Amino acid sequence: MKYSAQVLIIGGGPAAAVSAATAKKYYPDKEITVIKDVETSVVPCGIPYMISSLDSPEKNIMPFDPLKNAGVKIVIDKAVEIERDGKKVITAAKDEYSYEKLILALGSTPVVPGINGVELENVYSVKKDFDYLKKMIESVKKSKNIAVIGGGFIGVEFCDEISSLDGKNICLIEMLPDIIGNSFDKEFAEIAKKKLLDKGVKVLTGVRVEEISGKGKAEKIKLSDGQVIPADTVILSIGGIPNTGLAVKSGLRLGMGKGIWVDEYTRTIDTDIFAVGDCAGKRDFFTRKDNPVMLASVATAEARIAGANLYKLKVIRENKGTIAAYSTYLSGLVLASAGLTEETALRENFEVVVGKSESPDKHPGAMPGAGKLMIKLVFARQSGILIGGQVAGGNSVGEIINVIGLAIQKNVSMNELESFQMATHPYLTPPPTKYHIVEAAMNAIGK
Amino acid sequence: MKYSAQVLIIGGGPAAAVSAATAKKYYPDKEITVIKDVETSVVPCGIPYMISSLDSPEKNIMPFDPLKNAGVKIVIDKAVEIERDGKKVITAAKDEYSYEKLILALGSTPVVPGINGVELENVYSVKKDFDYLKKMIESVKKSKNIAVIGGGFIGVEFCDEISSLDGKNICLIEMLPDIIGNSFDKEFAEIAKKKLLDKGVKVLTGVRVEEISGKGKAEKIKLSDGQVIPADTVILSIGGIPNTGLAVKSGLRLGMGKGIWVDEYTRTIDTDIFAVGDCAGKRDFFTRKDNPVMLASVATAEARIAGANLYKLKVIRENKGTIAAYSTYLSGLVLASAGLTEETALRENFEVVVGKSESPDKHPGAMPGAGKLMIKLVFARQSGILIGGQVAGGNSVGEIINVIGLAIQKNVSMNELESFQMATHPYLTPPPTKYHIVEAAMNAIGK
Repeated sequence: MKYSAQVLIIGGGPAAAVSAATAKKYYPDKEITVIKDVETSVVPCGIPYMISSLDSPEKNIMPFDPLKNAGVKIVIDKAVEIERDGKKVITAAKDEYSYEKLILALGSTPVVPGINGVELENVYSVKKDFDYLKKMIESVKKSKNIAVIGGGFIGVEFCDEISSLDGKNICLIEMLPDIIGNSFDKEFAEIAKKKLLDKGVKVLTGVRVEEISGKGKAEKIKLSDGQVIPADTVILSIGGIPNTGLAVKSGLRLGMGKGIWVDEYTRTIDTDIFAVGDCAGKRDFFTRKDNPVMLASVATAEARIAGANLYKLKVIRENKGTIAAYSTYLSGLVLASAGLTEETALRENFEVVVGKSESPDKHPGAMPGAGKLMIKLVFARQSGILIGGQVAGGNSVGEIINVIGLAIQKNVSMNELESFQMATHPYLTPPPTKYHIVEAAMNAIGK
Repeated sequence: MKYSAQVLIIGGGPAAAVSAATAKKYYPDKEITVIKDVETSVVPCGIPYMISSLDSPEKNIMPFDPLKNAGVKIVIDKAVEIERDGKKVITAAKDEYSYEKLILALGSTPVVPGINGVELENVYSVKKDFDYLKKMIESVKKSKNIAVIGGGFIGVEFCDEISSLDGKNICLIEMLPDIIGNSFDKEFAEIAKKKLLDKGVKVLTGVRVEEISGKGKAEKIKLSDGQVIPADTVILSIGGIPNTGLAVKSGLRLGMGKGIWVDEYTRTIDTDIFAVGDCAGKRDFFTRKDNPVMLASVATAEARIAGANLYKLKVIRENKGTIAAYSTYLSGLVLASAGLTEETALRENFEVVVGKSESPDKHPGAMPGAGKLMIKLVFARQSGILIGGQVAGGNSVGEIINVIGLAIQKNVSMNELESFQMATHPYLTPPPTKYHIVEAAMNAIGK
């Protein structure tokens, strides 16, 4: 069959959904079609919470009904070819969709390392596929010994969630010296590690997986230091690779990294084709290098730009690049990061000055439920401009990082932060005399 | 006795404490003396929480020991005169303190309305005096019927705290049509009112107190609509008046309102004398009119500017004025505001466009403990610049308002917010597809 789509979006995640919603807002008269290749989409950030926080995995399904109700056509099919000259997309079902504007929100595919045993039953990667994940969760629940390979935030969140189930032996294996080391300096990584240890998770860092083995199904893991770990279920959370096959086949270019090249406005080299989310290349806000962060928050920010700019460039934008803002939650402990860590900044040749502060997260410190808040801000020495921040504490950290993220995006300096006007409240924040961001800026000044 | 102080600070609240700490940081070789007229200072924002949230009122004492340990001299005495020519301050104890730089952090005095019966026993205003407050709290605990006059955030917080004690009849009386109406539009004020009603507080709006009466002590309150309310304890929370007597007597000028005139750098007309906090005049960020907000957060921001700029103007500052950012907490419900409300903006002749969003405060909405988040942003129509924001929800609101506050202070536009990069997390925020600030900005665009 031949269909005419005007705005055609390929993808089934948040980037696709937000592209469609934004396009509908800006161009209400255009017909919009989304082609997605999974029947049931999941909320990507909620995947670890399908294990125990949510009553049932079904509660993490991403609804497309609001889009349908808004008049967006949703097609379950797989796009297999883009004919750029004829401006149409061919699907696995051999249907053809012509487009005026095309948005690629193709997502990413989990990395599966080239080691023996990854093909065994009960070895799972973190695919955004509801039925697959449901099987993984059933396997986890039946297993006594669970190994999580990869100590990024998804691996860490999986360990924490699984540790809330009874009677599990959990082992987290990370090649690098620290878990969550891409986004946190050592002192913050240590806090996360301690939390996992307190929850009974075995945390092995600086070791590689050499082999997964077992009869038909995974049974044990051999590590580079000679240790052998029992494992009835193995979860690979090593990161993802942008899905670019469809784009490359149609002659679109890749950027400096593995993602599709896009300009300031998320347009590919074909200005009628946009790419957003995990499949699209990203640059770091400060280093200007390729920074392949795969976060739904980044993806949706890009999707809004694409949706608005389809027919006219409405959102004027210098490509400031990604600040990779994110937060993670480990049984009440929240860690969040935005911009560069001190370690990354130094490695990338920035001259930095660091400011730190520790305070109770309520005031006075005797308020019920008060916990500890720890913050570190990284500034460029000469200009005093904020280039990164890390926070550890309770739930308030989830939005504190967005204050820091906005400050980074607006090139705020330590001197501006010194007279920052903030709201404080006994139940919600440190006292005004010790507001975390201001204190950390003051600590940095004059160093 | 005659003392030499170099930096002399008069005051016993957060503005005095932060002035001293900042002065110490910037001018470590200067001798710093603080003269305060109460032995025991309280954390001002914690006052309502001395009733039930804190185990004992003593937990709300503001410590001056850290300052003492840092080498700041603390004197309990009352400054009664400033001799500007001789650059010295005379105290009630007839001591003389010479200064090179003087910071006035004189605070404010609660308004006591001119009605019959305010002099009766068991009628209290909200003085920042520990012993006085302790007496008030004892009276509240012994009383069955408690009336709170004035529905600003302090009155509202008092009602909520008292409602956590058993067996109290609480009545909140507000002259204006809505409680917390200075900082919130009606739809938010209604949420606060509903919460108080749910907690059993009687909320009377649009009525005036005509008389407090009783034999020796307060027994009842007569209202303008003829009602008579029983009251064993009456709390007056009507606002404050800047303490400027000492300043005026020494020839310093007042500003456009009732506070001491200060320049961009918090200097009075005498550039060796600074004024900060409640006693100092403030301008509104947008209306440019006098805006006498009395918040510890504003006071401490000013104190940091004063402390840094005492001998050299180190913190360069255009006086952007106050955004009056604050949050309030009513048994788990948090309301927060920064900048102008829609109503104030319209009254002040701004042309506005409003954006709203409602979402769960976690994602998916089935996450444990998820509540509702409601946000309203007010933009200037022509420029799209953010001029105000209000939020209602759970504890995350306490820092969400600081994202909004920073956006206001940096003159961020709705278009910039559209592609704002934020961190989101299932346990901590709405989904990236519906992040409150972005959604509200999107809602405003094109209206």
